[in-house]
Amino acid sequence: MPKVVLHYFPVKALGEVVRLLLTYGDQEFEDHRIPMEEWPAFKPSTPFGQMPVLEIDGKKYAQSLAIARYLARKYGLNGQDIEEDFEIDQNVDFVNDIRAKAASVQYEADATLKEKKHEDYSKNVYPVLLNKLDEIIKKNNGHIAAGKLTWADFVFAGMFDYLKSMLRIPDLEKKYPSFQQVIDSVYAVPKLKAYRDNAPKSDI
Amino acid sequence: MPKVVLHYFPVKALGEVVRLLLTYGDQEFEDHRIPMEEWPAFKPSTPFGQMPVLEIDGKKYAQSLAIARYLARKYGLNGQDIEEDFEIDQNVDFVNDIRAKAASVQYEADATLKEKKHEDYSKNVYPVLLNKLDEIIKKNNGHIAAGKLTWADFVFAGMFDYLKSMLRIPDLEKKYPSFQQVIDSVYAVPKLKAYRDNAPKSDI
Repeated sequence: MPKVVLHYFPVKALGEVVRLLLTYGDQEFEDHRIPMEEWPAFKPSTPFGQMPVLEIDGKKYAQSLAIARYLARKYGLNGQDIEEDFEIDQNVDFVNDIRAKAASVQYEADATLKEKKHEDYSKNVYPVLLNKLDEIIKKNNGHIAAGKLTWADFVFAGMFDYLKSMLRIPDLEKKYPSFQQVIDSVYAVPKLKAYRDNAPKSDI
Repeated sequence: MPKVVLHYFPVKALGEVVRLLLTYGDQEFEDHRIPMEEWPAFKPSTPFGQMPVLEIDGKKYAQSLAIARYLARKYGLNGQDIEEDFEIDQNVDFVNDIRAKAASVQYEADATLKEKKHEDYSKNVYPVLLNKLDEIIKKNNGHIAAGKLTWADFVFAGMFDYLKSMLRIPDLEKKYPSFQQVIDSVYAVPKLKAYRDNAPKSDI
């Protein structure tokens, strides 16, 4: 079995999807959680100055969605043909668009502008996107794409708390029960439930 | 041959990669260019309220990178195994990160803040990213990934004028001759050169 290390911050956010996929694939890995104060020293050793970084026998893999797609193809969580793979990619990119919108507010340095943007997006942007996502999941039988469990569900479940926090909607899964369905479908896999029960806790 | 329509604005930006790939694949298509003033009326008919949208025999495909990956697999411009596909995906996502950073400035509504951000990014963000991309291309034999012509080069060539305009570096390809190499490798394909010579002109 290859030696695998995942380097990420001590949160779920964009790294959890990789932890979940490795667990699903029965791949043992070192879960290297790097506190923010150690990040500047570690940063130059990463391919793009970003995390997560997955290391497999010394080879470094960057970009969370590219890593997730790669692991999904290894572990059979991708589509069964290029049409299904397309649909997964398309809907993952849509989920990622929502995350990026929320992140553009979350990481706005100017505090006044940040609040102004949050108010604007909460009224004019997020509802449209979240309703569309809800519609997609309902059409897909409680999944993000292809009407079945795929790595797209892992992406969503992994980043859900992070997304919720950035959107500032603490009861997001109550407002959209379909979102809870996606999460439940991932943690219905016994080894993923066991992983979650034993993983270090983090709010995001 | 299926009936194919590409719906996009009358610019290259995020739609050109699809036009280039369809041309490479000898797929005839209707190049439906929608002027900005007609967009609000068309928008509700798109899957996510965004363009480009590719229509193949009435089935709609959204998200430019997901479409590009799908067409690349049809036309043999993807990797030869999951390792190469990973590398392509990773480096495409990095190119897309650069575009997204520049877009976050370009589409900032507050004019004062926009200029402040542009100054900050031009000094502290863009050079690091562009130097890294230059390094990647040099390591990949004049390509974005896998050391050969792949759909990653099409992504970069298609959005290059748009990127350049948002970065406000009109001589970007002079500063980074490796960028010009990627573009040249795409238009060295005779049918792509012929397409470009005959396509409607647009600045971005």
